Amino acid sequence: METVAPRFTLASLAQVLGGDADGPEDTPLARPASAGDDDPLGVTFAENDRYLALAESSDIGAIIVSHDARKSAKPLIRVSNPRLAFGQLLHMSDVPMRASPGNHPTAVIAQDAVVDPSARVGAYAVIESGAAVGAGAQIFPFCYVGEDCSVGAGAVLFPHVVLYRNVSIGENSRIHSGVVLGADGFGYVWDGRTRVKVPQVGSVQIGSDVEIGANTTVDRATAGSTRVGEGTKIDNLVQIAHNVVVGPHGVIAAQSGISGSTRVGARVVMGGNVGTADHVNIGDDVILAGRSSVGSDIDEPGAYLGTPARPISEAKRAIMIATKLPELLARIRTLEKKIEELESGR
Amino acid sequence: METVAPRFTLASLAQVLGGDADGPEDTPLARPASAGDDDPLGVTFAENDRYLALAESSDIGAIIVSHDARKSAKPLIRVSNPRLAFGQLLHMSDVPMRASPGNHPTAVIAQDAVVDPSARVGAYAVIESGAAVGAGAQIFPFCYVGEDCSVGAGAVLFPHVVLYRNVSIGENSRIHSGVVLGADGFGYVWDGRTRVKVPQVGSVQIGSDVEIGANTTVDRATAGSTRVGEGTKIDNLVQIAHNVVVGPHGVIAAQSGISGSTRVGARVVMGGNVGTADHVNIGDDVILAGRSSVGSDIDEPGAYLGTPARPISEAKRAIMIATKLPELLARIRTLEKKIEELESGR
Amino acid sequence: METVAPRFTLASLAQVLGGDADGPEDTPLARPASAGDDDPLGVTFAENDRYLALAESSDIGAIIVSHDARKSAKPLIRVSNPRLAFGQLLHMSDVPMRASPGNHPTAVIAQDAVVDPSARVGAYAVIESGAAVGAGAQIFPFCYVGEDCSVGAGAVLFPHVVLYRNVSIGENSRIHSGVVLGADGFGYVWDGRTRVKVPQVGSVQIGSDVEIGANTTVDRATAGSTRVGEGTKIDNLVQIAHNVVVGPHGVIAAQSGISGSTRVGARVVMGGNVGTADHVNIGDDVILAGRSSVGSDIDEPGAYLGTPARPISEAKRAIMIATKLPELLARIRTLEKKIEELESGR
Repeated sequence: METVAPRFTLASLAQVLGGDADGPEDTPLARPASAGDDDPLGVTFAENDRYLALAESSDIGAIIVSHDARKSAKPLIRVSNPRLAFGQLLHMSDVPMRASPGNHPTAVIAQDAVVDPSARVGAYAVIESGAAVGAGAQIFPFCYVGEDCSVGAGAVLFPHVVLYRNVSIGENSRIHSGVVLGADGFGYVWDGRTRVKVPQVGSVQIGSDVEIGANTTVDRATAGSTRVGEGTKIDNLVQIAHNVVVGPHGVIAAQSGISGSTRVGARVVMGGNVGTADHVNIGDDVILAGRSSVGSDIDEPGAYLGTPARPISEAKRAIMIATKLPELLARIRTLEKKIEELESGR
Repeated sequence: METVAPRFTLASLAQVLGGDADGPEDTPLARPASAGDDDPLGVTFAENDRYLALAESSDIGAIIVSHDARKSAKPLIRVSNPRLAFGQLLHMSDVPMRASPGNHPTAVIAQDAVVDPSARVGAYAVIESGAAVGAGAQIFPFCYVGEDCSVGAGAVLFPHVVLYRNVSIGENSRIHSGVVLGADGFGYVWDGRTRVKVPQVGSVQIGSDVEIGANTTVDRATAGSTRVGEGTKIDNLVQIAHNVVVGPHGVIAAQSGISGSTRVGARVVMGGNVGTADHVNIGDDVILAGRSSVGSDIDEPGAYLGTPARPISEAKRAIMIATKLPELLARIRTLEKKIEELESGR
Repeated sequence: METVAPRFTLASLAQVLGGDADGPEDTPLARPASAGDDDPLGVTFAENDRYLALAESSDIGAIIVSHDARKSAKPLIRVSNPRLAFGQLLHMSDVPMRASPGNHPTAVIAQDAVVDPSARVGAYAVIESGAAVGAGAQIFPFCYVGEDCSVGAGAVLFPHVVLYRNVSIGENSRIHSGVVLGADGFGYVWDGRTRVKVPQVGSVQIGSDVEIGANTTVDRATAGSTRVGEGTKIDNLVQIAHNVVVGPHGVIAAQSGISGSTRVGARVVMGGNVGTADHVNIGDDVILAGRSSVGSDIDEPGAYLGTPARPISEAKRAIMIATKLPELLARIRTLEKKIEELESGR
């Protein structure tokens, strides 16, 4: 943990958060911390007695609790909504990682690329011919922005992002390290002897306010565009195949994979390691629990689980029974024996 | 979507594809498009009435259909095989991404590396001592070619590929961004206190005409070589562990993982997120449906599915029944009740 | 396979390994090889007759066997423990990949970064302000070491590693290519219209003697630190989410994913593609078989398997029965028919 100077006292932080200090007012505090962290300058929050007890057992500086929480030996800050107050503290503590101003002398920028003067281009970035980088965009070191790509105003490419040719990124989107956008879609035809490549001549279009996690891949379309809608958030190590369309304001957790030409509606939520078949439609407001597999269309909003994914209560029931299969087998054996007895007794 | 000049008219494209224009002959057309794309300059194809209706409902420029397809208000191009004609259009529209000619002045090439004069080495590429790069090979920016590596003639390393020491890539193979070839295999021995590393002194050999998707990893062998056979196509985010041997002309879809020392035969096809145990043998012409898990040898050609993978019709039946477990449980309960009645009635 | 000069004869290698040569003493040998490799200069080992027969059928130079193994037409080296002797040969053959000495002139090192004079910093590495690199550490080309990061003595960052701001790496840890440490944790709050980002202000702390495989991602904590304990070994393409704590001396195989705030005890072993829910606790000495899913706490040491993960013998039994569901269904049908007959016969 880095050494930092205290930024608050119990009293000053309580005031900023609109709450009441309950403890030594001059307790020095420096930063938000997680429940259970041993951080004497840290501030965590507790929404209930269990988390309060956990925080009390650690070497934490102070705990944000609700007005009606019990007394504690630890310094408290009492507020009406501890979670919101903690979120406020997170925002106050957030110092976004920023690329250095201007274009680093080692950046290789094609003569006909158009980089807005307010954009920042880091060391050893490469921006190819015909690319456009909007106002205030940040391109960190080692990013590769291919020919005819477009990076929207305010967008951020963290170190080591690769955009193949003709990829567009919407305004204020954040693309994390190791992301590859626009590699060839995976399409081959078997000619009886070898796999013949189907040319992948399409593109990738990422909407505005999208976030894409580290080492995720989004392939270019065979023709047309693979698209991720405005405001959608994608976690690490996700695979989005060619010609997929993901709607706006969705959430796709880590290691999920969406197969070719599948369409995902608006506000869809996928847990970790969800998979889909190709060419399926997933409607708006569908929630897929972690590790679910979607093999056919899902039209109705609601929560789904399992392989194949089905309504979550139904799936949970089937999974519960599946864990009891040995018992079921025993019950069938008992029945068979009894039947035999009954039959012989006829 | 980028602005492009029309390249065809309905009549000129029909002629090139050996078909008949059915609609305004001077309709301007620019590029292939996907079914459902709103692209007035786009051309898609429809193999049946359902896709034809989908294309008609979009703002598409023209549709390639078979000679006997029904009439449409949209401009049509009638051919004998719409899919093949569309493939032809894709090939005509394909402008491969190419590295700049020659060696970029910022490339760091070891004095004793041998780079063919016709190869292209991009900005900020690093080629270490003893490496060889063949005729016409393309090394994009930020690639790392380790000591004693060999990159075959015509092979392409897209931006940000890493080859550890002593990796060889066959002719005309294409390695996409973020791929890591030759990192240490995952081998440790527990000595009762810590995990002791087993040195990984082997290598990786990739055959000719192989394609490897973005962010895939292939580990070096403990001793000998991890090998991928000629013509095999591997998708994104796949893991191939140390000492694995993958045969020729296979297909491995995204997020699949092949564990150490497993052998995969010729022309094997794996759907997405397939997993295998270590040290298993998968014979020639085996097809593994998406998300299957292979725990033991599979010798017979054919299609397999499930965990553990078994013949696909058998697996589908079991999965279907598994989704009906609550019903099965109810039937067992009914039987138990009836037996009880029968027994008490004896 | 590269061309190498023979380094041993059968006699000299037998002497080094403390064993007996059984075959032509001047047989030239160069390197360890895998069972089945056709490598006339290679040496493999065989612990039993099956592997001995496999090695005999290949074009291998010599085979390490136990003193009581049967005779062979191949040159043998007889030792008391063939596996240990082979491990000794691996260690003798290991020439670790090393970064070039000193700081490469193209490395961009911030003025206030502290790089130990004995560390090595490769071509096109970027080390940002406030970072510290310890004695003997090796930073390969294209690594990005963010602001205020700390790289311990003897640690190795292979080409293309990204450390976001304020990440610390313990002594002698090895971080493979494409690894991203410290990207934002995946946290959003739905405000009824959009996903609002929860700032991720924490950090990542990697202990000493840790190894992290290619393209793995470890996210920064929301507050506090995501932590990987001393001596733990992580394979390729693994996802470790924000605020996860992994204990010491564990093993996590490829493509596993650990969700947010989950705690993993000491010496835990995970097979490939294991997944966990968020906020669960996994106790010390738990072993999770490949592809298991952990949905709730596991306190007892031991081996677990399945979805949801349960004790392995129980899970194997249930999986075995699940593959026989069609047979079970048939038995239920038979029972129903017999009951019907019995009932009608009453």
